Amino acid sequence: MTIDEQVKALEYGTATIVPKNGLKEKLLLASKEKRPLRIKLGCDPTAPDLHLGHAVVLKKMRQFQELGHTIILIVGDFTTKIGDPTGRNKARPQLSDDEIKKNSATYLKQFSKVVDVKKVEIRKNSEWFGKMSAADFIKIIARHTLARILERDDFTNRFKQGVPINMHELVYPIVQGYDSVMVQADIEMGGTDQLFNCLVGRAAQETHGRRPQVVISMPLLRGLDGSDKMSKSAGNYVGLTEDANTMYAKIMSIPDELIEEYLDLASSFDQKECQELKKRIAKGENPMLVKKELACNITEHYHSTVLAKKAEEYFTTQVQNRSLESKEFEERFLESLKLPKKTIGLLDLCAALEKKRSKSMLRDLIREGAVSVNGEKLTNVHHIFSKLEIGMKIKIGKRGYYELV
Amino acid sequence: MTIDEQVKALEYGTATIVPKNGLKEKLLLASKEKRPLRIKLGCDPTAPDLHLGHAVVLKKMRQFQELGHTIILIVGDFTTKIGDPTGRNKARPQLSDDEIKKNSATYLKQFSKVVDVKKVEIRKNSEWFGKMSAADFIKIIARHTLARILERDDFTNRFKQGVPINMHELVYPIVQGYDSVMVQADIEMGGTDQLFNCLVGRAAQETHGRRPQVVISMPLLRGLDGSDKMSKSAGNYVGLTEDANTMYAKIMSIPDELIEEYLDLASSFDQKECQELKKRIAKGENPMLVKKELACNITEHYHSTVLAKKAEEYFTTQVQNRSLESKEFEERFLESLKLPKKTIGLLDLCAALEKKRSKSMLRDLIREGAVSVNGEKLTNVHHIFSKLEIGMKIKIGKRGYYELV
Repeated sequence: MTIDEQVKALEYGTATIVPKNGLKEKLLLASKEKRPLRIKLGCDPTAPDLHLGHAVVLKKMRQFQELGHTIILIVGDFTTKIGDPTGRNKARPQLSDDEIKKNSATYLKQFSKVVDVKKVEIRKNSEWFGKMSAADFIKIIARHTLARILERDDFTNRFKQGVPINMHELVYPIVQGYDSVMVQADIEMGGTDQLFNCLVGRAAQETHGRRPQVVISMPLLRGLDGSDKMSKSAGNYVGLTEDANTMYAKIMSIPDELIEEYLDLASSFDQKECQELKKRIAKGENPMLVKKELACNITEHYHSTVLAKKAEEYFTTQVQNRSLESKEFEERFLESLKLPKKTIGLLDLCAALEKKRSKSMLRDLIREGAVSVNGEKLTNVHHIFSKLEIGMKIKIGKRGYYELV
Repeated sequence: MTIDEQVKALEYGTATIVPKNGLKEKLLLASKEKRPLRIKLGCDPTAPDLHLGHAVVLKKMRQFQELGHTIILIVGDFTTKIGDPTGRNKARPQLSDDEIKKNSATYLKQFSKVVDVKKVEIRKNSEWFGKMSAADFIKIIARHTLARILERDDFTNRFKQGVPINMHELVYPIVQGYDSVMVQADIEMGGTDQLFNCLVGRAAQETHGRRPQVVISMPLLRGLDGSDKMSKSAGNYVGLTEDANTMYAKIMSIPDELIEEYLDLASSFDQKECQELKKRIAKGENPMLVKKELACNITEHYHSTVLAKKAEEYFTTQVQNRSLESKEFEERFLESLKLPKKTIGLLDLCAALEKKRSKSMLRDLIREGAVSVNGEKLTNVHHIFSKLEIGMKIKIGKRGYYELV
């Protein structure tokens, strides 16, 4: 592959590249200096569960790896050891060395589902921050201005809304940015939600007189419910290590309008194959059939052809043709449903459970007698539950089985 | 003295006490716990030249000392050793250990002009910050929010005006605040311009579960020119170690409207004596006579009665009755005059030099022939100097002798 061909292949599917022509320049540099590029990826050891959303970035990194470049995985253990001293941010618990070690191992195992971990350079940022003095730390943060740091979306919003920002939160992006200086990153990768942090790394290298890294961000994959980005906390994710049956069934649960996005970002189909599958839907083929190929392709990648086929079979016999009694499929998903507020209307309850359908569709279903609670049909759209109870079984349409937990 | 009498005496002349009744509470606490109060004062080892402005705070501290309390002088050497890594802030040069030691000694010598230094507890904040790790430092700053730190006037203004604030500047108030935690300050003192920093110390103690210090701020003494607060950089100051003749003459140079302020804040006259002197002016006595008593009192405090008398004599014979030839007095002050812009009108030049007089007064003086340049009378108010030269001698009225430097 020529440099231009590499640029084309690597730029395909990315969301942003800063600066625009940066990738080509880095590839030329690597070729001139006869060395692999150093591609940085930061990982948060408090959240070691990787899902298809993370895999969007990992797949692009795999591509770099296949071209002979070096992936540097930075375990952000320094701030994790500090935790959130204010106790307000529960997403940042303080972890012990043992927990970090354990989480990092879990992380790597999942990482290996996409990239060749044997070739990955793994670094912990406590290597340089752990021994650092307060004085040296102040010298590092001095190179950044408040205005630039406040440009980060969530800071901007919190600042405008008067939601407190504690001072340590402001220095964490600088900590991440300094990692780029220390590992001499040529490129940093992340989802578009990491763009800001990656750009701080670029600024940090510049202020330290280094050649600044190119930042490549990948689009965010929406979650299974199509409402927001895939995340563990939203419960709308497919974990990279989930068993084949679950993985297959979860992908089958995405609304049809997500199929194209999942083909592009989550599957292993190449550009051409993706286009053909999209064409089939455009021509009026039942999207379910394309979705099955998608589910099969993804399951195959993370498991095997055999297990993917078995998952398809399981889904068809046990889930697709299921009755109220065959609860196996539903039970897998009940974990993610939370008990709604105490008083709730039937229509709102249905909307909360069955996110794929619009309220007007659900209204019709109720009127048609297609909604039942504990086996009893409810046809009054304005029915109010004075109290919801755990264990209550709700059926919406032909395939929506729910149990409150 | 009863506690209430002490409160009254100590509160006299202060600008702000936070919280309002805090001083009494602290005095009661000290009495209950049978221990002296710990009164913190921070000092900046980059600016070891103390002047009458600083003495306003020191005199109040002396009062605490006389009541048996302990003054803790904190030498802020930690941030001084870091300096300003961005190089933008020239007021914060990076000092070596030797320079800090030298400056601290100079500082103490001047400090001793007002308080009993033998009884002062001297601490350097490098004691606790010097060995601190970056991780512990982050835990300390985490206890403060950005919004609170940005409340400081200069930060607020710079932020609003888009003037860059580097991240290390934001953590410096927290560094000062943490000093209060470490020395277990009961009270922190400063000028009103230090109020914000002192309040951060109060907040720091609270977040560390300590009893928060009371903050006492003293009014800022205006400089000799009456235009702004006394400061070395404005050149409008009287240094505590200046020789008696200079000190006396400088005080004689203040405009009449500053006499009351100097009586209250800079002299050693007690409340009653101040009131009597003020009354004499109110009754129509020549303010010059009261100013002489003020100059004598201040010079006496920093030198001796004998030297104060000699300074008065010197002023009367050599300065007050001086001719163009007796340049001794002027030469002392010429240092502080900067060469004005290249092209300047006569009236503007006079106004720049003779700050005590209004433009209309100066206009009259020019018309009366009371202004001369290099011995030549200039009576045209609209005269323009195409070029000003170093060494040019300007006489304005009977007593305004200037030489451009």
